[in-house]
Amino acid sequence: MPVSERNTVSERFQEVPSRWKRQHLLGLEGLSAEELTLLLDYAQSFRDEILTAEGTNRKIPLLGGKAIVNLFFENSTRTRTSFSLAGRRLGADVIEFSAGTSSLSKGETIIDTARNIQAMGVDAFVIRHNCPGAPQLVAGALDGCSVLNAGDGTHEHPTQALLDMLTIRQRFGRIEGLTVALVGDIAHSRVARSNIRGLKTLGANVIVCGPSTLVASQWEELGVEVSYSLDAILPRVNVFNLLRIQFERQVVRPFPSIREYAYLYAMNARRLARCRDDVLIIAPGPINRGVEITPDVADGSHSAIIDQVTNGVAVRMAALWLCLSRR
Amino acid sequence: MPVSERNTVSERFQEVPSRWKRQHLLGLEGLSAEELTLLLDYAQSFRDEILTAEGTNRKIPLLGGKAIVNLFFENSTRTRTSFSLAGRRLGADVIEFSAGTSSLSKGETIIDTARNIQAMGVDAFVIRHNCPGAPQLVAGALDGCSVLNAGDGTHEHPTQALLDMLTIRQRFGRIEGLTVALVGDIAHSRVARSNIRGLKTLGANVIVCGPSTLVASQWEELGVEVSYSLDAILPRVNVFNLLRIQFERQVVRPFPSIREYAYLYAMNARRLARCRDDVLIIAPGPINRGVEITPDVADGSHSAIIDQVTNGVAVRMAALWLCLSRR
Amino acid sequence: MPVSERNTVSERFQEVPSRWKRQHLLGLEGLSAEELTLLLDYAQSFRDEILTAEGTNRKIPLLGGKAIVNLFFENSTRTRTSFSLAGRRLGADVIEFSAGTSSLSKGETIIDTARNIQAMGVDAFVIRHNCPGAPQLVAGALDGCSVLNAGDGTHEHPTQALLDMLTIRQRFGRIEGLTVALVGDIAHSRVARSNIRGLKTLGANVIVCGPSTLVASQWEELGVEVSYSLDAILPRVNVFNLLRIQFERQVVRPFPSIREYAYLYAMNARRLARCRDDVLIIAPGPINRGVEITPDVADGSHSAIIDQVTNGVAVRMAALWLCLSRR
Repeated sequence: MPVSERNTVSERFQEVPSRWKRQHLLGLEGLSAEELTLLLDYAQSFRDEILTAEGTNRKIPLLGGKAIVNLFFENSTRTRTSFSLAGRRLGADVIEFSAGTSSLSKGETIIDTARNIQAMGVDAFVIRHNCPGAPQLVAGALDGCSVLNAGDGTHEHPTQALLDMLTIRQRFGRIEGLTVALVGDIAHSRVARSNIRGLKTLGANVIVCGPSTLVASQWEELGVEVSYSLDAILPRVNVFNLLRIQFERQVVRPFPSIREYAYLYAMNARRLARCRDDVLIIAPGPINRGVEITPDVADGSHSAIIDQVTNGVAVRMAALWLCLSRR
Repeated sequence: MPVSERNTVSERFQEVPSRWKRQHLLGLEGLSAEELTLLLDYAQSFRDEILTAEGTNRKIPLLGGKAIVNLFFENSTRTRTSFSLAGRRLGADVIEFSAGTSSLSKGETIIDTARNIQAMGVDAFVIRHNCPGAPQLVAGALDGCSVLNAGDGTHEHPTQALLDMLTIRQRFGRIEGLTVALVGDIAHSRVARSNIRGLKTLGANVIVCGPSTLVASQWEELGVEVSYSLDAILPRVNVFNLLRIQFERQVVRPFPSIREYAYLYAMNARRLARCRDDVLIIAPGPINRGVEITPDVADGSHSAIIDQVTNGVAVRMAALWLCLSRR
Repeated sequence: MPVSERNTVSERFQEVPSRWKRQHLLGLEGLSAEELTLLLDYAQSFRDEILTAEGTNRKIPLLGGKAIVNLFFENSTRTRTSFSLAGRRLGADVIEFSAGTSSLSKGETIIDTARNIQAMGVDAFVIRHNCPGAPQLVAGALDGCSVLNAGDGTHEHPTQALLDMLTIRQRFGRIEGLTVALVGDIAHSRVARSNIRGLKTLGANVIVCGPSTLVASQWEELGVEVSYSLDAILPRVNVFNLLRIQFERQVVRPFPSIREYAYLYAMNARRLARCRDDVLIIAPGPINRGVEITPDVADGSHSAIIDQVTNGVAVRMAALWLCLSRR
């Protein structure tokens, strides 16, 4: 891409999107269809014009001079690295904060930690915490600094749901009217909660499917269909989002064995053959090969698992850019 | 700020301050009043013109192409992040070194580690170590590379004392003639030692105050007043610097209970009412709310605790810039 | 160096070296003499014109906009930091990945981890792993992304051998015809394996020397001479490469005591006096002072141990630049 076009792209992004009013991205609950669409549109533009454009250097210095701190209180590879790359692609300085080596071990509160770091001249926090509501708590205590939720307990993981929706929209051109099944460990899944909120707002039908120990019937109150049989819903679903069994969050094992779970809920070639011809298989990862998905399906043509990861950087660039440019 | 003014700022900083001769900042012991004032003046300029200037990107590439390594052998959030941000704001590359994953676990000496890293083309080390004198040891073994002490055992923490002094100077316009009380865990505090040296050189009166198990009468030999009663000194102190009780450094507990310590030494609303109208409350943090300070005082109008953190970045920018530009 | 000359340097490096066809640097096995020489020539140029040039800022943005991920599954200071600095000097973004905090602990395969990170828009992986072949495994699974081996078990450590060879060439002007002795823990040494391959290809005579528990006679099959007596080979060796005893890799201790090992194999003043006048002493480090080398020899005029470290950054710049510019 010649320099003149790069400038044009940069200038276009720099137009402040007046429809976007939010300082924080704490969850998809409460976001309007227009806000969700704006996020997805920006993410698509970043993907097309920066991330996958030939010959460019994949950087656009929209956030030059800004400082973003990754405040991760849970282990993470992909989300942390994805946010880091998104911030750097936008020209920001990204500072990694490791909870294990911090003053929190000296008894400091999370709000004091965040206020202190902010006072060093930080423009945004990306927060992952095992306690639902931690990013909201920090956002309420800071002034003039953006907070992006990178996963809080079993509550929300908005950028994961956004990248899932972007992947769906790329394949089908729309989200409205599609039937999306979230399969697996719904009970412990912040990804499920964020997906339900975003997908419903954009007009999709959502099914949550898994063993009854992981899918309570009360989920129907969120406006979704509950199913305990994957085989029963195969023919009528457009998108399967296969959630990982989160052994690390479970206090008691919710099924007798992994083998039994895989027998009933793994997406494999036999089940794929009963799906629609254009079915889309996505998974938030890291995937457990042979548990919720067999390797042939994970690596097959219906899968967009790797594509989701690229969309993740694009979505995070959009979220950072919109929240930080809003002021 | 228009580009032309940015250039002017940059050019002004680039004038080599010929009065500054030091390659290292190992402690405040031995620094002259002129050197301390130069550090504070530069820090104030960085704060005014880079850190809190409206509309700028908060970067000034005075150390472009330089590499700074953070060698931290003790846990730290704020000091490490503050030095990282200071280095990046000056355009340097900042490399984080984690002692836990290093060759030191293979038996290498700290001097060999530092010499090796320096040979990679490193211009400065920021060192925190639990052993007093470790930064001095490294500084003596390296040639042409700056060493900044980020806290060595109970010895010195010069940039913390500088940011305390900058905060005091911002509030009162001077340091000379003020009475500054350091309250709490004096015995284990490198912050106290650095503050005493800097404050005395700049003409302040210093009181160290705390239980006798944490404040030995021998401190008087450093030219400070020793007091065991916070209540007795309240009316005549201009600045209270409330040190954290460093439980992690104490071999035996120096008082019967935290509650008793707080009863005698916590700065609370009742005590604040007996202080001077313009009293300044600072604390090096992380603060233990309810121990050395109550939340209402910490968050009240006399407190400059958050302001100190911003000053910390400014002071570290000044120290890095002066030590690295000296050659 | 004036800007015009900087540009010339930059332009010269930017000429794609058509003789270099490799996407990955997985080991020195199989590299031709021409390829090895090209790597060393580029490394020498980076050293002369960027790393040790007076007055420059030691950066050349040949890889601007590229992202490099350090995937280290073993502890490392010097290699990790050296690759980080090499990447940053070339203008790339370098992302640190810590295996301990990753999704690998959630059961993800290393290939899935690498594929996922690549999908975020990563151009190169620098991989260290305790399993021989891990970098090859990842290289075979990725498409369009370079992999550089930073040490895989006891297999290869190509950039360490390249920096050793660069150091030898700087001292003697050539490698062909020299006699190079690798002394010590040959059995556990990936450095020995890479050195043997590179040195043999460039025409050196190689001796492996150490106790029989660490040097099997089968090494002769690689075309090297095997010796169990350091004293016997002293007078005819041009270069001694003193390998560290890797206690952390040994299941059973291969000699009765460290003292006995040092008595027979340490390079000390007494042995140095029996060496050639122009003998060169190198060591991959971290060195165990008093075990394989005495402090006076390590810090003496025949030693190039610190120089090796600077060459390490230069060699890694060359490897990154060649592999990434190849496409």
